[in-house]
Amino acid sequence: MAPALADGDKGQMSIGPDVEVGDKGQMLSTAPSAQGRPTSRWRMVALVIVLLLSLLLNVVVIVIASGQTHSSGEPGMCGPEGKGTAATNTTLPSPDSICSGNGIIHADAPTKCECYQCYVGPQCEAMARGCTLDAGSGNPLIFEKYWQERSEAALCIAPSFHIGYRFANADNVMVLPALDEALRHLHLMVGNVAPDVVKGHHLVIGTGSTQLISAALMGLSHLRAPRTITASKPYYGPYHSLPMYFNNSHSMVWKDTPAAGDDVVEFVTAPNNPDGSMRAPRNTSADVVYDRAYYWPHYTPIHRPLADDLMLFTLSKITGHAGLRLGWAFVKDKALAEKMWEFVGTSTLGVSHDAQWHATGLVQYMLRRDASPMRFAASEMQRRWQRLKAIEAAAKRPRVTLQPLMPSQKCLFWGSVRDPSPAYAWLKCQEPDDEDCWEVLKTQGSIKGRNGGQYGASEKYVRLSLLMRPREFDILSEKLEAFMNPES
Amino acid sequence: MAPALADGDKGQMSIGPDVEVGDKGQMLSTAPSAQGRPTSRWRMVALVIVLLLSLLLNVVVIVIASGQTHSSGEPGMCGPEGKGTAATNTTLPSPDSICSGNGIIHADAPTKCECYQCYVGPQCEAMARGCTLDAGSGNPLIFEKYWQERSEAALCIAPSFHIGYRFANADNVMVLPALDEALRHLHLMVGNVAPDVVKGHHLVIGTGSTQLISAALMGLSHLRAPRTITASKPYYGPYHSLPMYFNNSHSMVWKDTPAAGDDVVEFVTAPNNPDGSMRAPRNTSADVVYDRAYYWPHYTPIHRPLADDLMLFTLSKITGHAGLRLGWAFVKDKALAEKMWEFVGTSTLGVSHDAQWHATGLVQYMLRRDASPMRFAASEMQRRWQRLKAIEAAAKRPRVTLQPLMPSQKCLFWGSVRDPSPAYAWLKCQEPDDEDCWEVLKTQGSIKGRNGGQYGASEKYVRLSLLMRPREFDILSEKLEAFMNPES
Repeated sequence: MAPALADGDKGQMSIGPDVEVGDKGQMLSTAPSAQGRPTSRWRMVALVIVLLLSLLLNVVVIVIASGQTHSSGEPGMCGPEGKGTAATNTTLPSPDSICSGNGIIHADAPTKCECYQCYVGPQCEAMARGCTLDAGSGNPLIFEKYWQERSEAALCIAPSFHIGYRFANADNVMVLPALDEALRHLHLMVGNVAPDVVKGHHLVIGTGSTQLISAALMGLSHLRAPRTITASKPYYGPYHSLPMYFNNSHSMVWKDTPAAGDDVVEFVTAPNNPDGSMRAPRNTSADVVYDRAYYWPHYTPIHRPLADDLMLFTLSKITGHAGLRLGWAFVKDKALAEKMWEFVGTSTLGVSHDAQWHATGLVQYMLRRDASPMRFAASEMQRRWQRLKAIEAAAKRPRVTLQPLMPSQKCLFWGSVRDPSPAYAWLKCQEPDDEDCWEVLKTQGSIKGRNGGQYGASEKYVRLSLLMRPREFDILSEKLEAFMNPES
Repeated sequence: MAPALADGDKGQMSIGPDVEVGDKGQMLSTAPSAQGRPTSRWRMVALVIVLLLSLLLNVVVIVIASGQTHSSGEPGMCGPEGKGTAATNTTLPSPDSICSGNGIIHADAPTKCECYQCYVGPQCEAMARGCTLDAGSGNPLIFEKYWQERSEAALCIAPSFHIGYRFANADNVMVLPALDEALRHLHLMVGNVAPDVVKGHHLVIGTGSTQLISAALMGLSHLRAPRTITASKPYYGPYHSLPMYFNNSHSMVWKDTPAAGDDVVEFVTAPNNPDGSMRAPRNTSADVVYDRAYYWPHYTPIHRPLADDLMLFTLSKITGHAGLRLGWAFVKDKALAEKMWEFVGTSTLGVSHDAQWHATGLVQYMLRRDASPMRFAASEMQRRWQRLKAIEAAAKRPRVTLQPLMPSQKCLFWGSVRDPSPAYAWLKCQEPDDEDCWEVLKTQGSIKGRNGGQYGASEKYVRLSLLMRPREFDILSEKLEAFMNPES
């Protein structure tokens, strides 16, 4: 019994045994009116005692289960792992029954299905076969089902939880100490950042790593100006658009190719978005902002622990919680870290405490589960790349080709040689006439990617996100296969 | 029984009746071994039946309580009002026992007291009588105790809750539909914004209203540039510092007094921060950004419903959740609303879904409770102003004076004539020698306010926040009284 109770789900189920108790209650109410011989009375007493023991057992089970979930687990968790006794979302109707297995429901609108792509109808019951599959955004819904099946990871926020602007008891009043600690532990567990850097660098958090890109730009250009901003093509668009948007061209200018003597800030994304290549800086004297959003074992072999001066990370690509908006930076230079905090403090007065607390809960969950979400994503990403490679290999004359992937390497996390499985496919149209590859893929393949131009590259290229839901990836791959084999 | 169960707390307490059941269990185990006459057997049976009924009742109570909290209430709430069965924070040790009634504990560090100001020690057991009371920040901890006593308002977030960047089912994918709806209902309930504006204006949300100040600046200057930014003294500092920080002086410049022909953006805060005055624009042709953070019935009589083209609001000043980071703007012009969304989307890719969901829960709680947090704050703010006025009136020759308050007015929310009770005291040093009023108050009064210079005013002025915890306000008022009556 005790081992069974240690499993939270089982303990929880026994809390509301409506049918079982109802039946016994009816039996009980007839028992006192029975009249008969002494032996039958003894039988009755025995029956009552058995019933009593049974009921007592129920009560004991409930008390133990209740005690278990109250005394163990992580604070803030609603589920059996935490200090509550029920996971809210388990009481939502099952999306598989309501939404025909083709959609999800959320607590804010518990009867309204959010249909997977290409499914329509109030219950997502119909497939729109002629639909266009949107693989434009890097929306990491690949993780959605994983979390849907883990309602025990639901988080509680008390209404009085750190309502003020700052964390009064923290060394750094802008960051929840438990989050700082959990993030550093995560890197130690995965091994993608060198231990002395994990312990020694300053940790700056932002409202998503997007805010930290701006913080790095502003911080570096406030320390020293003017700055020339650059990145090698193809690059993630916001490195180029953010300095343009802030429009302060007297403190920073973008150049594809910096001139000699320019005081350069170079963005290096490795693995690169969009093409997955392992980049190195092009400008030897530049201040380098390393965007390490994809340097995790589900995207690439962790071939060495990083030790760079400025590295950006984001929760969205490791747990899928893009909407939570949490990114972090490891910063060696104290003055730069302070400038980056100044930006976060000035532009949004810090990062939502709710986001910080939820991120803490999710990262702690990963720590307890040996990086389980990454293991899930790694397996799924390997499957996706095998499928894409098979489609390309099977095509007689591929109209689009996949980017060449980096070679297999020994991964420090897995302890074995692994193939990369990057977050994006970087397609190139091979037909000379297919000049606008994005348009061709959309009109003839019903696949909407992102135009290579958004990455500073030619329009012969299109980026396809591979981070959609599994069902959606299957539709994408079917469409890609049909596009590659128009005769069939 | 049913009415008692409708009270969540009582239902919840019966879930873990450890002591009661333990006692009965012991009685039961001795019962079967009792031997005696038939009457004593019948007594035993009767005893067993009574026990049985008692236990059955316990079970029924538990089942009903469990069913109650599962089937009613708001989705996402952990407490008895929601779909969970336990409010996480009720299982935290009581801060009043752990922290001597002089501190609070939070779920992220459930054994570490965060002491109120001027209290020290691991259990906040000692008062540091010579301490300086910090009334600088407008940190709205006045609401902390209110929420501490309302653990039923705890929120659950399922781990799969809208993990993607956008709300797929929403008209505007950047804002949770339930939040949009709750905020509009709140204004209708309070009556501080005209119903046709509540229904007709575009709602833009931001990571706190700070982000919306930038969004308004950027939006207005992206629509038309260059812009001259201004506000009447004394003004809230960030109106001045944010355009300076973004440093793009070719699209916007600050001027205390705009020149003829300038294309002006004027910030009007009414009631004003710092002095509580009901401001009107100074520049008739300006685009006006109305900061209405304090136009709520706990700070000022709601003398008319507003209908301005651009109005900013923030959750922090109405529920106290400053750390949650949520602000909103009502925007009449569609093009401006889109530019403001563009800023929020560009700088942080939107607002944390966790913050949006928690804000939804808090505003819905207010709606169900007839604006209860505002009623709480109104009563407390009235008390604070009565105390301050009494201190000023009792002083023989006040060394500092309070700002004159706006006259009493009929309030649409209260339905009666009310005095204003603004969020800040705007003190003026009266002695000619007290040139640096902030320094005088700090060194001779042990009160740390904010220098008038931060508001574009003279250093004869100091702003004191009145939004601290009740205990802290009492210390502040004692210190102010002592400062005003040095002879006593």
